[in-house]
Amino acid sequence: MTDPSLPTPAEPVVRIDLGARSYDIRIGQGLLALAGSYDALPRAASALIVTNTTVAPLYAETLRRAISPLYTQVLTVTLPDGETHKTWETLNLIFDALLAHGCDRKTVLYALGGGVVGDMTGFAAASYMRGVPFVQVPTTLLAQVDSSVGGKTAINHPLGKNMIGAFYQPERVICDLDVLATLPPRELSAGMAEVIKYGPIADMVFLDWIEQHLPALMAREPVALAHAVRRSCEIKADVVGQDERESGLRAILNFGHTFGHAIEAGLGYGEWLHGEAVGCGMVMAARLSQAVGLVDAAFVDRLIGIIARAGLPTVAPVLDPVDNAGRYLALMRLDKKAEAGAIRFVLIDGPGRAVMRAVPDELVVQVIKASTAPATPA
Amino acid sequence: MTDPSLPTPAEPVVRIDLGARSYDIRIGQGLLALAGSYDALPRAASALIVTNTTVAPLYAETLRRAISPLYTQVLTVTLPDGETHKTWETLNLIFDALLAHGCDRKTVLYALGGGVVGDMTGFAAASYMRGVPFVQVPTTLLAQVDSSVGGKTAINHPLGKNMIGAFYQPERVICDLDVLATLPPRELSAGMAEVIKYGPIADMVFLDWIEQHLPALMAREPVALAHAVRRSCEIKADVVGQDERESGLRAILNFGHTFGHAIEAGLGYGEWLHGEAVGCGMVMAARLSQAVGLVDAAFVDRLIGIIARAGLPTVAPVLDPVDNAGRYLALMRLDKKAEAGAIRFVLIDGPGRAVMRAVPDELVVQVIKASTAPATPA
Repeated sequence: MTDPSLPTPAEPVVRIDLGARSYDIRIGQGLLALAGSYDALPRAASALIVTNTTVAPLYAETLRRAISPLYTQVLTVTLPDGETHKTWETLNLIFDALLAHGCDRKTVLYALGGGVVGDMTGFAAASYMRGVPFVQVPTTLLAQVDSSVGGKTAINHPLGKNMIGAFYQPERVICDLDVLATLPPRELSAGMAEVIKYGPIADMVFLDWIEQHLPALMAREPVALAHAVRRSCEIKADVVGQDERESGLRAILNFGHTFGHAIEAGLGYGEWLHGEAVGCGMVMAARLSQAVGLVDAAFVDRLIGIIARAGLPTVAPVLDPVDNAGRYLALMRLDKKAEAGAIRFVLIDGPGRAVMRAVPDELVVQVIKASTAPATPA
Repeated sequence: MTDPSLPTPAEPVVRIDLGARSYDIRIGQGLLALAGSYDALPRAASALIVTNTTVAPLYAETLRRAISPLYTQVLTVTLPDGETHKTWETLNLIFDALLAHGCDRKTVLYALGGGVVGDMTGFAAASYMRGVPFVQVPTTLLAQVDSSVGGKTAINHPLGKNMIGAFYQPERVICDLDVLATLPPRELSAGMAEVIKYGPIADMVFLDWIEQHLPALMAREPVALAHAVRRSCEIKADVVGQDERESGLRAILNFGHTFGHAIEAGLGYGEWLHGEAVGCGMVMAARLSQAVGLVDAAFVDRLIGIIARAGLPTVAPVLDPVDNAGRYLALMRLDKKAEAGAIRFVLIDGPGRAVMRAVPDELVVQVIKASTAPATPA
């Protein structure tokens, strides 16, 4: 029997309901070092912490100490940091470590880092001996609100980003809000792009809340961050729960991503952060929604204002000085969501509701022109 | 309404029942060239035939012609032949072809070849854009009776065989018995090892039938082959249906494989064919079953006789002239099915029934000694 006088638990939990593959996202302060964060996970002789050169000195030892009572051996593999290392060669460092230490098919992998570490650890877990359990310990805001839900794992191929991967669910996600204190400001803003995204596509009450609490969020106040992470995960979980394998609805989570991917690819990966490209991509997708008559100028201006206040770029970069719009279109036709060369955009069909649409090229070109930095006068 | 005067369809179909991932195995003569073999598969703009340098000149054009009405483009990628090429580098040839031709996430992959082609194509399908459909067109007896069912896909890692892969089900398996006509005799025997296996672990009536029809099978008579393939797939489907992700029961399909893998690894992969190693491994596993008192000598002798008549080796190779049994044990402890270093053997617990057991090392050593080729006298 629950005692109603007891306070509600300090850490919110978001339950991701996927039948046999269900799991919890735990959100709170100090979770990384807390033994209780790792209770009731699959038992195994070995665990492997996968992290990177930036995160390892900050948090790897804390995690190792917290989980070491659970395993006979706790190994750590430290990958080079950055999207350019999201390759087979880097992934193989994980397999090398697992095989060199005789890790069996019950070994638990821990992804300690941002999206790149999460994507690679998840794909390694999906494919090592055809699948071992893994736990996500995301250390960036972007990873906490985005990679926490959905089970997408992948590596890049020289001809395309995230082209090789799997849908594979973690056993648990542990979002410690304290680790966000060490996040560089650009990465905080990049994470905010995905937080903001959930408003226009699904929940205008959440967008109102974000607008009101932007100063608290940018100041990394844990109470505000906790709500932002929790609500983002809930909305994503709701969408993914209806479409685990991305056959339809789930595509709305890519609001801003079609333009954003073109920016990332066109500038060269790593030039802009993914979240920065998505921030600017949302500006462009909002304008495209207005161009096809789905939202009004006031909505677009309000969204651009929030994106700008979150420290994100709102002016699109020039990708080709000769035929800029043509370059954007060509890059978007290569997108993984394109089908037989046709670009499908996520548009806002009235605030709080997203739809997938093909749009005539002229309108897309018009939006690219309106969003691009004007040439500096001579 | 079905007309009862119509003859029953010429090709047997084995239905693999896995909920949303269910599929059919079609078995018969002339299926490769038959348009009807490919009816009702997922629609797509592109298909990619993955094959190897041995099979391509024999059957790739026939397959291409049969499926070309279904797709705008049908591509072919021809991999080098052999287990030594079951690597990431070879797998990447598939991804390169898919990306170079702008293949989207609906592209259908066709695996035209033996187990290596099937394993690599399946893993490529599992991971290209996080999963595209694939069809198996196995061209060896081993692939028809073994890889057809179970959804196991993988590549090798320098430190271990099949260490990186996925459980991923095909849309359909097309077993054309005519293609077995061009199979080298050693490969026919290797396939027979897996056919014979299904008797002692699950169905002694089938073992009786095999014993009686060995001459017909070795002469590649299609009617006999059809029954052998169908019954093998049915038994495997029955076992896998109860345990898709290999948590327990499914392990009985590895009868002969623990010793067999040690032989393959100890001699160097490719020295003996997988089926040859399994044939000899079954001799050793049967002797081990006798040593722990589960079956009698008559059963072991009968099984050895069938294995020998199928053209398979029954005398185990010497892997280490100084400490042969020690080398076998060390290799078996590295097996993917070992847990924390303990070897679990599949033993025959009375004809037609398999069990998993740990066995004292002394008995294993005794069986290795009894099964190994005696040193040639000086």
